[in-house]
Amino acid sequence: MKPHLSSKLSPSQPRGDAFVKSVLEVTLQQLAVVGYERLSIPLVAQVAAVNKTSIYRRWPTKPELVREALAVAMIHVEQAPDTGTLRGDLIAMALTVATFTQSAVGTAIVRIMLAEGGNSEVQALASTAYAQAGKNNPWVVLQRATMRGELKSTMDPSLLLFTIAGAIMHRVFVERREVPQDFVEQLVDLMLTGAAVKC
Amino acid sequence: MKPHLSSKLSPSQPRGDAFVKSVLEVTLQQLAVVGYERLSIPLVAQVAAVNKTSIYRRWPTKPELVREALAVAMIHVEQAPDTGTLRGDLIAMALTVATFTQSAVGTAIVRIMLAEGGNSEVQALASTAYAQAGKNNPWVVLQRATMRGELKSTMDPSLLLFTIAGAIMHRVFVERREVPQDFVEQLVDLMLTGAAVKC
Repeated sequence: MKPHLSSKLSPSQPRGDAFVKSVLEVTLQQLAVVGYERLSIPLVAQVAAVNKTSIYRRWPTKPELVREALAVAMIHVEQAPDTGTLRGDLIAMALTVATFTQSAVGTAIVRIMLAEGGNSEVQALASTAYAQAGKNNPWVVLQRATMRGELKSTMDPSLLLFTIAGAIMHRVFVERREVPQDFVEQLVDLMLTGAAVKC
Repeated sequence: MKPHLSSKLSPSQPRGDAFVKSVLEVTLQQLAVVGYERLSIPLVAQVAAVNKTSIYRRWPTKPELVREALAVAMIHVEQAPDTGTLRGDLIAMALTVATFTQSAVGTAIVRIMLAEGGNSEVQALASTAYAQAGKNNPWVVLQRATMRGELKSTMDPSLLLFTIAGAIMHRVFVERREVPQDFVEQLVDLMLTGAAVKC
């Protein structure tokens, strides 16, 4: 391996962090535009204006490139809200999920999960990526709610959070509607207090 | 148009109901196997062992064929449960949604909804088909529950039902897990009584 001196590089052949960031961003963007099947390393190279050999050197195959792009995309949705109430925290998290689900990257990930004949390894990764979008948040948020005495002790946190995410997926992809604040509030209130008359 | 006498038809060229039923069933089956993009009328003709001209005569284009196949598929999920309780009815409906979501047809419909570059008319139809899978049931079930005094008067029935459907979609397509009876019961109990400590 020959050492590279960054001062010798042309702007179209960035190295290190900038190169990686650029390639991964273009990968996500093109995933959203053309989908997994039609995505190719030469296409990414062309759009990112880098040499495809540089891409192949770091990511020998498309699945490897997509895997890292998805993993990096997930880092951006990792901030836990702390509004002081379970209701406030769930609304904040649901709004984050809604923004993500409606984004180009979110759509791309959902498409990869469902693509026919796609790479099953990448599909599994996309499922994990989606399910873990902000995985660290919920547990902190729900722990705090339990300590405040707000959450039923028998409640399965995954069920609560995945149901919120599923309702938003249904709204975006099945009903094809926007996800306004008042929808999110009604959804969270349903999750907290239920639909049945009681007490 | 020449009249056809059914006694003259060979088994591979059925007419009327049997022909329509066979072509629509093969269309759904192939949608699930190869997806919307790769589906073609010649392929359907080949698998159904009918003449493609006969298909073109009734459905001149692929979107028209797929539209009718989806519409017919929906008819099979139209029975309203009547167990005597809202909980029982919701569990029965959720199990129906779960079976449908995990079926080849349900998967095909979800894929069409999300296909990149697909026919937007068919995508919209698939969304409607999915959202309306058993559309008549829920309203009857929720009306009965309201009359029995089981359902909060402020509850939006669509929110309740679409949230159940969304949670099942999330389970099947994101988490990639089975949908056993005890999951469905926990989901329905969450929808009815909520996650918050109260009273």
